[in-house]
Amino acid sequence: MGKPAIGVIGLAVMGRNLALNIESRGYTVAVYNRSREKTDELVAQFPDRKLVPAHSLEQFVDSLEKPRRILLMVKAGEPTDATIAALKPLLDKGDVLIDGGNTPFTDTIRRNQELAQAGLHFIGTGVSGGEEGALKGPAIMPGGPRDAYELVAPILTQIAAKAPDGEPCVAYIGPDGAGHFVKMVHNGIEYGDMQLIAESYAVLKQVAGLTNPELAKVYTEWNEGELDSYLIDITAKIFGKRDDETGKDLVDVILDRAAQKGTGKWTSQNALDLGVPLPLITESVFARVLSSLKSQRVAASKVLAGPQAKPFAGDRAAFVEAVRRALYFSKVISYAQGFAQLRAASEEYKWNLDFGGIAKIFRAGCIIRARFLQKITDAYANDRALANLLLDPYFREIAERYQAALRDVVVAAVTAGVPVPAFASAIAYFDAYRSERLPANLVQAQRDFFGAHTFERIDREGSFHANWA
Amino acid sequence: MGKPAIGVIGLAVMGRNLALNIESRGYTVAVYNRSREKTDELVAQFPDRKLVPAHSLEQFVDSLEKPRRILLMVKAGEPTDATIAALKPLLDKGDVLIDGGNTPFTDTIRRNQELAQAGLHFIGTGVSGGEEGALKGPAIMPGGPRDAYELVAPILTQIAAKAPDGEPCVAYIGPDGAGHFVKMVHNGIEYGDMQLIAESYAVLKQVAGLTNPELAKVYTEWNEGELDSYLIDITAKIFGKRDDETGKDLVDVILDRAAQKGTGKWTSQNALDLGVPLPLITESVFARVLSSLKSQRVAASKVLAGPQAKPFAGDRAAFVEAVRRALYFSKVISYAQGFAQLRAASEEYKWNLDFGGIAKIFRAGCIIRARFLQKITDAYANDRALANLLLDPYFREIAERYQAALRDVVVAAVTAGVPVPAFASAIAYFDAYRSERLPANLVQAQRDFFGAHTFERIDREGSFHANWA
Repeated sequence: MGKPAIGVIGLAVMGRNLALNIESRGYTVAVYNRSREKTDELVAQFPDRKLVPAHSLEQFVDSLEKPRRILLMVKAGEPTDATIAALKPLLDKGDVLIDGGNTPFTDTIRRNQELAQAGLHFIGTGVSGGEEGALKGPAIMPGGPRDAYELVAPILTQIAAKAPDGEPCVAYIGPDGAGHFVKMVHNGIEYGDMQLIAESYAVLKQVAGLTNPELAKVYTEWNEGELDSYLIDITAKIFGKRDDETGKDLVDVILDRAAQKGTGKWTSQNALDLGVPLPLITESVFARVLSSLKSQRVAASKVLAGPQAKPFAGDRAAFVEAVRRALYFSKVISYAQGFAQLRAASEEYKWNLDFGGIAKIFRAGCIIRARFLQKITDAYANDRALANLLLDPYFREIAERYQAALRDVVVAAVTAGVPVPAFASAIAYFDAYRSERLPANLVQAQRDFFGAHTFERIDREGSFHANWA
Repeated sequence: MGKPAIGVIGLAVMGRNLALNIESRGYTVAVYNRSREKTDELVAQFPDRKLVPAHSLEQFVDSLEKPRRILLMVKAGEPTDATIAALKPLLDKGDVLIDGGNTPFTDTIRRNQELAQAGLHFIGTGVSGGEEGALKGPAIMPGGPRDAYELVAPILTQIAAKAPDGEPCVAYIGPDGAGHFVKMVHNGIEYGDMQLIAESYAVLKQVAGLTNPELAKVYTEWNEGELDSYLIDITAKIFGKRDDETGKDLVDVILDRAAQKGTGKWTSQNALDLGVPLPLITESVFARVLSSLKSQRVAASKVLAGPQAKPFAGDRAAFVEAVRRALYFSKVISYAQGFAQLRAASEEYKWNLDFGGIAKIFRAGCIIRARFLQKITDAYANDRALANLLLDPYFREIAERYQAALRDVVVAAVTAGVPVPAFASAIAYFDAYRSERLPANLVQAQRDFFGAHTFERIDREGSFHANWA
C-alpha cells in the first residue's frame, strides 16, 4: 500500500461507506474516528481493503500524501467546527478539507473564509443518495475555490453516480457555500416530491378507493412513463411490501407521523429571506409538521366532521390518469419554484450557478433522480437566462395539457375533504404566476390607508399617497 | 412644567406621535432626536404642549424624573444598539428603557439580558396602529421584567387604545422578548387577513363580475356582521375612492405589486423553527412576493393560458354569501394557526402567555382589530389549555356551518383559474387537522426505504426498520 491519497474523518454510516467507495476505485484511504472502536471495527470487517487506520489526528494527518485531502463526515455544527480547529495546527498550506456533512451553507461560507486566511482550501460538498448512494455512487455537489476542487475532482468523479448516459453526477457548483446550498434546495425539492406522491396516494385511496395492490400497480406503471424516478419506483415497491409480524400490508401498519431533519425548513426560510415564492415546498414542510400532531388530529377527528363520504362514481381509469397528470404538472411547478430559488441565490451570493448542469447532477445517485431532470437541463441549454421553468416550451406544453387534470384533482379532493396542500398550492402558484393582474393592488391600497406606506400607479412612475379619510 | 416623567428618543412619525399622545394625557415629555432639526420642528409646531426639547443625550437624560423612563423609537437593529450603548453610561440603576420599535424578539431577549447585567430595566414593546394609532391610542404589547413594567404601566395604560367595553388595549405580555414576539405574530396575522380579503375581492370580481361600487357595498354590509373589523371597513372605503387625477376608481389605478417590511416573513421563519404549521400566513407572504414579480407575470400571462373565461351563471347573492362565509372561516383557521404558534412559543421560551388576554389587546388600536377577537378571548376563558381554536365550541360550529362555502369558493376559483393560495391552504389545513389518518405513513416508509430513518408502528411502541429490498 502506498501513502493514502485521501483520509476520511467520521466513520458513521455515510463516512464509512464513502471511504469504502473511494477505496473501491483503487485508492488507499486513511480512516479515523473520534472513538477508536469504529475505526478498528471497519478495518477488521474489511481486512483486504486498502484502509489505513489512525488512532490520533496526528497519526492520521502524518499518514497522508501531500497536499493532504481530508473528507470530514462528522456531525454538522459544533462537532465540525471542533474537528476543524483540532486539525488546523496539524495541516500545511495547500491542504484540502472537504466537508461532506449536512451543513447549512452559511456555515460553509464562514469556514471558507476562515480557512482561506490560514492558507487552507475548504470544499463544502453536498452528498446525496443515503447509505447506498455513499457506498455505490452518490450525487456530489462541491462548492469552494475552483483550484481546490481540481485537487479532489479525480476522486469525486470516480466515486460519483453515473447518469444513464455515463456522465458522472458531480461538477463544480460554485464558490464557498454554493455546493451546500444546492444540496439544501435538492432536499427541499425532495420534501415537495414526497408530499406530492403522498397526496396522490391519499386521493387515489380516499376518493377512488384504490387498494394497496392496485396502488402498487399504478405506481409501477407510472414509473414507466414521464414520472420515471427513484421515488415513484420505491413507492410502487412499498405498496407491495408485507409486514412480517402481522401479515398485513406494511404501509398500513406504519404510523402516519412524518419526521424531518431540518433541511426542508432551511430551504423555506432561505426562500423567505431571498424573497422567492416557494409555497409548494413550504406546504410540504408544514404538512410533515402537521402530521406529527397525531394526538391532536385524533382528538379533532372526533369533533370536526367533513363532507359525507360518497362512493366513487366516475371512471376510475380516467381518474387515475388525471392524478398522474396532476402529479407530474405539480412536480414541474415545484421544480420551477426550486430553480427560481437557485437563480435568486446565484445572483444574491454571486455564484454564477449552471442550472442545467445542476439538474444533470441530480439525474443519478440522489433521492430525486428522475427521467424528467433531462428536460430541465434541456430547458436551460435552450435559454440560459430562463426566468422560470414554466416559460420553457416543453413545460409550457405540459401546463397546457395537464392543468385541467390538476384542477379536477384539487376540486375532487377539496369536495371530498381530502387535504391536498401541495396540489392546491401548485395550481395557485401557476394561476398567480400567469396573472397579469393580481389583487395586490388592494393590499397596497390598504397599506397606504393604514400606514401611509404609499403605492405605485399603473399609468406612471413614482410613489404616491392618497388622502383616504 | 415639572420634570418630564418620560422621554422619547427618535422623532420620526411614530415617535413623534407617541410623544404627543403621552403629553395629551397630562405628562411633561422630554424629546430628543439625533438630528436636532426634528426636535426643534416638533416643539415649534406645538408651542403650547409640555414638550421639553434636548439637544444632547446628556441634557435629555439629566432632564428626566427618576427612575428615568425612556421610550426608544429609533430604527430597529444597529441604530437601536448604538443608541442604547450611548445611553448606558448616562443612566442609573433602576432606570427603564422601552424599545417601541419593530424589533425581532431575539434581539429583545439579548438586550434584556445585557441591560439586566447593568442593573437597567428593559421593556421591548409591540406598538400597533400605525401613525394614527400612535397619536390617538395604539394597541401595546410590552414584554420584560414585570417590576419594570409596573414603572411604566400607568403611562402605557393611559395612551393605549380603548376597547369597545372601555378596557385599555395593553397588558403585561411576559418576560424578555414576549411583547415583540406577540407583535410579530400580530403582523403575520395581518398579512393573512389582508391576503384573504384580497382573494375574496379577486373571486367576487373575476368569478362573479362584481363592479367596484358593488364591492364597496358588499364590504360595507360584511362590516356590519361577523366580519366587522378595521380591515373590512377600510376595504369598503377603498372601493369607493376616486382617483383625483384620472377620475377612475383609485383601486384600479394602483399597481398590483405588494410590498412588505419583513415581519410576516419572520413569523413564518419562526413557525418553521418551532415546528408549528403556519401555512396560511406563509402563503400570504409568498403571495406578496409573487405579486412583486410583475414583469415576469406580464410575460407569463402572454404564454400560459388558463381556463376559458365564462360568464357567471349562478345566483350572485348566494355566491357573495358563500365568499363571506369562506372569508370568515378562513380567518378563523388563520387565527387558529397563529394562536397555536403563540402557544408553542410560550412553551418553548417559557413565557406563560395569556392567549385570551392577547386577543383582548388586539380589539382596538391595531390593524387587525375586529369584533371576532372577543370570540377568541371567550374560547380561552372557557378552556385555558385549548390546543387549537378550531376545537372550541363556537369555532367548531363555524366550521360545521361554513366549510361547505369555503369548499365551494375554492372549487369555483380553481376551476376559473383565479389564484386563491390562502383560501386553498385554509381548507387543506382544516382537512389535515381533522384527519385521524394522513398519508404521512407513506412518507415514513419512503424515508426508511432510502435512508433507514426508521418508522413507528400503529400497533406498538418503538422504532422499526424494514428490509425493503
